[in-house]
Amino acid sequence: MGKLRAAIVGTGFMGAVHARSATVAGAQVVAVVGSSPEKGRRAAAAFGVGEGCDSLEDALRQGVDVVHVCTPNATHERFATAAIKAGVAVVCEKPLATDKATAERLADLAAQAGVVTSVPFVYRYYAAVREARARIGAPGHRPPWLIHGSYLQDWLADPAATNWRVDPVAGGATRAFGDIGVHWCDLAEFVTGQRITRVLASFARAVAKRPASGTGELQPVETEDGAVVMFETDAGALGSVVVSQATAGRKNALSFSFDGPAATYAFCQETPESLWIGGRDGNRILLRDPDRSGSPVGRAATLPAGHPQGYYECFADFVAETYAAIRGEDVAGLPTFADGLRAADVTDSVVTSAKTGSWVEIPSR
Amino acid sequence: MGKLRAAIVGTGFMGAVHARSATVAGAQVVAVVGSSPEKGRRAAAAFGVGEGCDSLEDALRQGVDVVHVCTPNATHERFATAAIKAGVAVVCEKPLATDKATAERLADLAAQAGVVTSVPFVYRYYAAVREARARIGAPGHRPPWLIHGSYLQDWLADPAATNWRVDPVAGGATRAFGDIGVHWCDLAEFVTGQRITRVLASFARAVAKRPASGTGELQPVETEDGAVVMFETDAGALGSVVVSQATAGRKNALSFSFDGPAATYAFCQETPESLWIGGRDGNRILLRDPDRSGSPVGRAATLPAGHPQGYYECFADFVAETYAAIRGEDVAGLPTFADGLRAADVTDSVVTSAKTGSWVEIPSR
Amino acid sequence: MGKLRAAIVGTGFMGAVHARSATVAGAQVVAVVGSSPEKGRRAAAAFGVGEGCDSLEDALRQGVDVVHVCTPNATHERFATAAIKAGVAVVCEKPLATDKATAERLADLAAQAGVVTSVPFVYRYYAAVREARARIGAPGHRPPWLIHGSYLQDWLADPAATNWRVDPVAGGATRAFGDIGVHWCDLAEFVTGQRITRVLASFARAVAKRPASGTGELQPVETEDGAVVMFETDAGALGSVVVSQATAGRKNALSFSFDGPAATYAFCQETPESLWIGGRDGNRILLRDPDRSGSPVGRAATLPAGHPQGYYECFADFVAETYAAIRGEDVAGLPTFADGLRAADVTDSVVTSAKTGSWVEIPSR
Amino acid sequence: MGKLRAAIVGTGFMGAVHARSATVAGAQVVAVVGSSPEKGRRAAAAFGVGEGCDSLEDALRQGVDVVHVCTPNATHERFATAAIKAGVAVVCEKPLATDKATAERLADLAAQAGVVTSVPFVYRYYAAVREARARIGAPGHRPPWLIHGSYLQDWLADPAATNWRVDPVAGGATRAFGDIGVHWCDLAEFVTGQRITRVLASFARAVAKRPASGTGELQPVETEDGAVVMFETDAGALGSVVVSQATAGRKNALSFSFDGPAATYAFCQETPESLWIGGRDGNRILLRDPDRSGSPVGRAATLPAGHPQGYYECFADFVAETYAAIRGEDVAGLPTFADGLRAADVTDSVVTSAKTGSWVEIPSR
Repeated sequence: MGKLRAAIVGTGFMGAVHARSATVAGAQVVAVVGSSPEKGRRAAAAFGVGEGCDSLEDALRQGVDVVHVCTPNATHERFATAAIKAGVAVVCEKPLATDKATAERLADLAAQAGVVTSVPFVYRYYAAVREARARIGAPGHRPPWLIHGSYLQDWLADPAATNWRVDPVAGGATRAFGDIGVHWCDLAEFVTGQRITRVLASFARAVAKRPASGTGELQPVETEDGAVVMFETDAGALGSVVVSQATAGRKNALSFSFDGPAATYAFCQETPESLWIGGRDGNRILLRDPDRSGSPVGRAATLPAGHPQGYYECFADFVAETYAAIRGEDVAGLPTFADGLRAADVTDSVVTSAKTGSWVEIPSR
Repeated sequence: MGKLRAAIVGTGFMGAVHARSATVAGAQVVAVVGSSPEKGRRAAAAFGVGEGCDSLEDALRQGVDVVHVCTPNATHERFATAAIKAGVAVVCEKPLATDKATAERLADLAAQAGVVTSVPFVYRYYAAVREARARIGAPGHRPPWLIHGSYLQDWLADPAATNWRVDPVAGGATRAFGDIGVHWCDLAEFVTGQRITRVLASFARAVAKRPASGTGELQPVETEDGAVVMFETDAGALGSVVVSQATAGRKNALSFSFDGPAATYAFCQETPESLWIGGRDGNRILLRDPDRSGSPVGRAATLPAGHPQGYYECFADFVAETYAAIRGEDVAGLPTFADGLRAADVTDSVVTSAKTGSWVEIPSR
Repeated sequence: MGKLRAAIVGTGFMGAVHARSATVAGAQVVAVVGSSPEKGRRAAAAFGVGEGCDSLEDALRQGVDVVHVCTPNATHERFATAAIKAGVAVVCEKPLATDKATAERLADLAAQAGVVTSVPFVYRYYAAVREARARIGAPGHRPPWLIHGSYLQDWLADPAATNWRVDPVAGGATRAFGDIGVHWCDLAEFVTGQRITRVLASFARAVAKRPASGTGELQPVETEDGAVVMFETDAGALGSVVVSQATAGRKNALSFSFDGPAATYAFCQETPESLWIGGRDGNRILLRDPDRSGSPVGRAATLPAGHPQGYYECFADFVAETYAAIRGEDVAGLPTFADGLRAADVTDSVVTSAKTGSWVEIPSR
Repeated sequence: MGKLRAAIVGTGFMGAVHARSATVAGAQVVAVVGSSPEKGRRAAAAFGVGEGCDSLEDALRQGVDVVHVCTPNATHERFATAAIKAGVAVVCEKPLATDKATAERLADLAAQAGVVTSVPFVYRYYAAVREARARIGAPGHRPPWLIHGSYLQDWLADPAATNWRVDPVAGGATRAFGDIGVHWCDLAEFVTGQRITRVLASFARAVAKRPASGTGELQPVETEDGAVVMFETDAGALGSVVVSQATAGRKNALSFSFDGPAATYAFCQETPESLWIGGRDGNRILLRDPDRSGSPVGRAATLPAGHPQGYYECFADFVAETYAAIRGEDVAGLPTFADGLRAADVTDSVVTSAKTGSWVEIPSR
């Protein structure tokens, strides 16, 4: 099988990340689709890959094996559907859709079509995360009974900062949780193998009014700057996650602690090379190390120990795994449209709970 | 004024800590009261202070300025009441009482008598904690809007471990929260200056059955190994604390993060010499340093920077401040019986919420 | 100007790293040269770039703008010379040569030819390193007076481990210093702007005998597992670096501390996202942040704060800067063949000092 | 045996530390000797112990078991000699003397008299230090082959700062090394069990002129602000230590790394609760924990894990061990006058080497 042929839909920052990862993962990016032909051409030049295209249809006509959808959320459905109907694999940025019904439609369509799909819950691809998962999943390991952590950023800490996501019409009913809280929940479920069954959420704002995008006039903020979510799992564990986009000094601090009587696993995304494993008689720090026997090794990310891999390698590994699935290889733990739908389910229950102040079940599918 | 004369009631580990701190804080420990005269004598010898006494009354007859109550919780009321009625200051171990009504009675009695009282919420006395409090309380500082953290231990992580506190008859309806969660809440309120107004709590167990104290027979555990508490404050902040006594590898890990748009304050009790202050453009690490201008300086704890003070110095500072109050000096932030009652109020609401699964208000007094 | 056309000479791990970085930096890799045509073809396929070539001459005939030399050290001269004589830019792996005379010849040749050359002292391209350099170099900043650190690895800690570098015939008279010590010295000079003027070195071995490559028979080890080098600089600073390839638990721990009376700068390569800046009244942690005003921003490495960049981005930035220089743009701090020669000079003095046990000057050029 | 009776000679900060530690270790401080009777009385009141005395002779007449000498260095000999001749145990602050000959005289005198002596190389009493020592000394453990670290402070980083120690007449020919470098060397020898056999030292100054104590007039500084010492041991290890009193941001940062092919031990005095143990397949963090089987437990310092002990407990443990030796108990690793003499030997060789720029042997006794 030769190189996979990929098309990128979207010309912004995430489009660039996908283009880069596609190249590193060994694909040929043949087309970049923009909201106008000119934008597509400029992005293709900027990314240094392929040609600008007039439309996704145009790109599909050139023959592609995979489409990367990196456009604003509301348009995900349109592009993903077109690709799936053409029998082409899809990598679609998260959230899969701005509402649960659409996410469900897409997941169903993908399942019926039998094409490979994926959603970049990329933090699954840090070696330390895989290491924790492998250890917790080993036969005889008792499940963590307390699952907690936080995901803290500060890009909206400045009261003068704003973004289209602040507006619920453009960004949906939830901002902090919907953007980053879902990453944390996906990781917690992925690593522990447990499923969150119900949630109790509370939302808060750090800044009451922010400048409107166009006018700069101060307007009341309707989406949350932060959230606290308490939860329970199908294995009887209790959990908590704190989410914030206005915590001065924290840039992208996704941290977790999965606690057990014999072992506790702690990780922070800002220093992803190491995994802390607590024990009653001493704690261990495992550094990512492809040479350690039994160490999880990424398909694309194989730098020697002590040479930090970073976020891009994590992303490239995710893309490489998607491509391996497309080539028919066995892959473990690829986040698919089913996981995108799961995130929509969790988000929907969290939003409902934040409104009602009471426990809300998450449907199991 | 000469040395204060102190009596210690209680012959266990906390009795020893109080005896040591009383000595370091400059008092003369004249009496140690045990549950029998012989026990009192042995403890006095072991602590290297004073004489064993037959009873608190016996000790009071010798003339003491302060009584330290370090006995099991259920007996706090008896000793504290006797001391207050004798017009003598009291340092009473936490919790002040095993129920809210008793705590209220003691706090009222102390207020009427006008004697100095204190309860060892000692973590208030770490320099880093005082530093955070001073900065947050400075004029013009915006209040933290997100208040979170955890208090994690592992001394009950071993399924074979047990303790009298596991039994609700002896230890009360809550174990993990009642023992250590209250410390966290006291610290959060002390540092931020905000009051928790309502809570939503959930309890969990890591171990379903533990050996009974006497027989070693496995018995169902009725008190929680861990708790998650979501809360709101009178300044509109949202909060969360995770509490556990069964997190392998965490010994006494009380951590907090008080998050604001301009500054975030983070601290961990296991490395108490430093305070992390997050800012959007960079983070600062402040080391405890008596020589830094404006640095909080403890009455008893004044080691040069870089010479770690540790838990005992923190405790000694608390006792030294109590003694200063007894001598009529101005002290700021001494945890009194009113704070002990506050902890009883918070605990009571948390227990009720854990039972009902819904939000419970904390009475303001 | 269209895409640069690059050729990679060498089919091993470093060849792969260069191929990847060349692609990410926007070049088209047109040729991969192996020690046999077949090896070149296989590597081209494995790297997913260009075509295998029979020889460098063959590759040059196809028209290339830059040649990456990633072959064993002893062959660097041959390929670099051929490229320079063809008027083509060269990126040559370090060390430039196995002896000082050859390094001098290459540096001279490059200077006369006026082609762009570079040597991957890539650690210069971490944002934290650039940040330290910019601050120390700011007008009025007093030079660090104490310059120290270490570079510790453990890939030769296992007494059963061996490698062609262990043999002085293949690897040269110095192993630990020549391989990694030179990286540390380059970084120290680059960041502080000071030049090491003389050195006093001592070598040591952790393991007396190692298995020979072919036979597995134990043979005395003649190259050092570690080195301590004391030095002085042209600004009057005193320095020390400890180098080791047999320190269990340290994978690639290059650390430095550049100490001054007003500010100290500390960095560790294993956690390269942050720079520690010590001050008498408090310490700062600067996270890499392209959005911070005045923050050094890499040409190729521009991930948002909190998304770790890692080693590959650092490498890609180095290559991108080399390519910018080839396109005639202004670049600051590119490590050229002159820096490769500097490393040969430092190494030569260190080896001499280790033999004589006395101070040895480093020639200034 | 009743309480030991102790006398403190010296009324400054170290006198206070000794008085406190003596009390905590269970002695009765019966006398405080000052340079005048009035100073002794004031110090006794301030320390809250014993009575002021007119002279050491006066104190000895009252019957004491141990004398703590905490006076300026030049007077150590006089007080220590008087105590030893009276057959009384001595705890003498370091350095034992300002020159090697005096240190030798004192060590000989103590040996002949057979009294217990000790010198507060207190860092030996951190649990993490004892843990490293016990592990390295276990049968079959291979000796570390690379021994390195640093001891960094910043109390003389400010060019305006000065101190009597800056003047070689008052403080001796070496300042930074003599004050703190000797602590590091004592710890390295104590933990590894190896002896430094020869040294090569270099001294440097951060600040050329400092204000004179009396006049404030700027005067050339003659003692070193920092030192680099390279060394070898009797087990063939290579070593290096960097010492500084002018490294902005480091308060009392004594750090070591004792490196082996199978295990590396790293420690920092500013966070003394933990010991880092490097291994090829993963690293461990051991927290001080009296409940861990085989964990070193201090005589006086027995706080539960997670409750930081700090510097004072370390000091109190040292004093408690001295007292145990006085009571005839077996103690391991007490730093005696022989160790004080050893420090004088090491210091003397370092000063000589710094002058000559060449290797200098340390006499073995």
